[in-house]
Amino acid sequence: MMTEPKSASGERPTIGVFDSGFGGLTVLRALMARIPHARFAFLGDTARLPYGSKSRRTIARYASQSAQFLVSEQDAEFLVIACNTASALALDDIKDAVTVPVQGVIEPGAEAAASASHSRDVMVIATDATVQSHAYAAACAARGLRAIEKACPLLVPLVEEGWIDHPVTAEVVRIYLDELARDAAAQDMKPDTLVLGCTHYPLLRPLIERAVPAGVRVIDSAEAAADAAVRMLGERALLPDLPQVTRQIPPPATEARFFATDSVEKFERLGSRFLERPVANVELVDLGG
Amino acid sequence: MMTEPKSASGERPTIGVFDSGFGGLTVLRALMARIPHARFAFLGDTARLPYGSKSRRTIARYASQSAQFLVSEQDAEFLVIACNTASALALDDIKDAVTVPVQGVIEPGAEAAASASHSRDVMVIATDATVQSHAYAAACAARGLRAIEKACPLLVPLVEEGWIDHPVTAEVVRIYLDELARDAAAQDMKPDTLVLGCTHYPLLRPLIERAVPAGVRVIDSAEAAADAAVRMLGERALLPDLPQVTRQIPPPATEARFFATDSVEKFERLGSRFLERPVANVELVDLGG
Repeated sequence: MMTEPKSASGERPTIGVFDSGFGGLTVLRALMARIPHARFAFLGDTARLPYGSKSRRTIARYASQSAQFLVSEQDAEFLVIACNTASALALDDIKDAVTVPVQGVIEPGAEAAASASHSRDVMVIATDATVQSHAYAAACAARGLRAIEKACPLLVPLVEEGWIDHPVTAEVVRIYLDELARDAAAQDMKPDTLVLGCTHYPLLRPLIERAVPAGVRVIDSAEAAADAAVRMLGERALLPDLPQVTRQIPPPATEARFFATDSVEKFERLGSRFLERPVANVELVDLGG
Repeated sequence: MMTEPKSASGERPTIGVFDSGFGGLTVLRALMARIPHARFAFLGDTARLPYGSKSRRTIARYASQSAQFLVSEQDAEFLVIACNTASALALDDIKDAVTVPVQGVIEPGAEAAASASHSRDVMVIATDATVQSHAYAAACAARGLRAIEKACPLLVPLVEEGWIDHPVTAEVVRIYLDELARDAAAQDMKPDTLVLGCTHYPLLRPLIERAVPAGVRVIDSAEAAADAAVRMLGERALLPDLPQVTRQIPPPATEARFFATDSVEKFERLGSRFLERPVANVELVDLGG
């Protein structure tokens, strides 16, 4: 169920952003750069990650508890599910669990691919769990696109190791993209668009853009999700009538609180790399089993 | 508490082997090669992995439940904790939770390093969680060794991607071992021994042996744990007086049952690579939250 509340805070809506870990900070970063006057509350359900290996019912329960925390305890008036697994498997459950508008990351990524692609063939790279859900393929098919998906399980650990601009990472990206291009050719596809279907991948965007064939557009689903959120907020009159903002990085004055369900150390250490500003004072919360 | 039961099954003891995932299958493999006439029950607590990011109390609870399953439901007369995190943080809790002898992986690894090292300086590579526990450093110090530990977080994902004998993996191993050698030199250490402190790493042993400096001995803690288990079983008269077996791979006739707490697909797919024989008919068990 969904209602359309006026922002309780007047000109400054509170936006809740949820991920199973901290990769979703790339979505928060894109949101803060676009809506710097909003308040943000980010929750990483780090005690229970990874969601990818769990059943749909368990993921729905965890994600719904997390969404309720952001709405009930942090007064979020709008939720962005910055987690591909939860977006793929539990978006309807989350919408049923809260009374505020909810936005995922998969539909906006597919929508941006549909706008960008002329050949109507697109490639998607993501984690194993996201690929196995085929959520991007389904969202692309609904827009008349053929999608070929590839799991790239080494990219998240490489980002978390900090090997962002590293020859090993460049080689791994080259291997994955070569395999993907071969698989696409074997299916007579002529993809002209590559969707980054994991919230860790935006950190590898420069390296990925150097590796894709000429003429292939790279779509960042974190940026696409933030664009879609701005549109949805505007439609629901949750945004004041301010000029459109297109900053590169979040302004330091933007208000953001961070919550995690387990050890905050890694979150603080790596988070600033994803957010491009310091992530400090992460608060530990207990959502139960 | 610990009692010393005679094998209820006479000449064929039942040995329980536990890991949070399936990496511990390398320990099972070493045990089956040494004690082919025993019965084995392996439990991977895959629903609740990774243990590394969880608190000590939570790990102790999960590991104790798993140990009790192997003893109560599978009649294990001896337990091998083939999980570095649980061995580091919860071995005493597990010993308190069951009435059979319990063997971890860390003490045997340190013991084998103590036997191998002349310089008394050793290197340990492991996961982030194991390194942060400093369990190997403590077990080495208790034997008069200085240990320098290094987390190698990319090695598990590389093994799970199947890049066992791959140029990228060789390069990653080279980078990690170079950094470790530099750190050791900066501390005026002259290590002559490298301990593989993670149950995934034995699959990379050929590649690691090519990368270590000449004269450095590689200690596989899975092999060391199996050797220690054979000794402990012998001391407790749980083994019949058979000639010592030193097979390279587990004989196909050896009886083994496999249990997992979540999706068995990855377990079956990757498990045979760790065990060097097929892993089929993995049974799903529910240990609760």
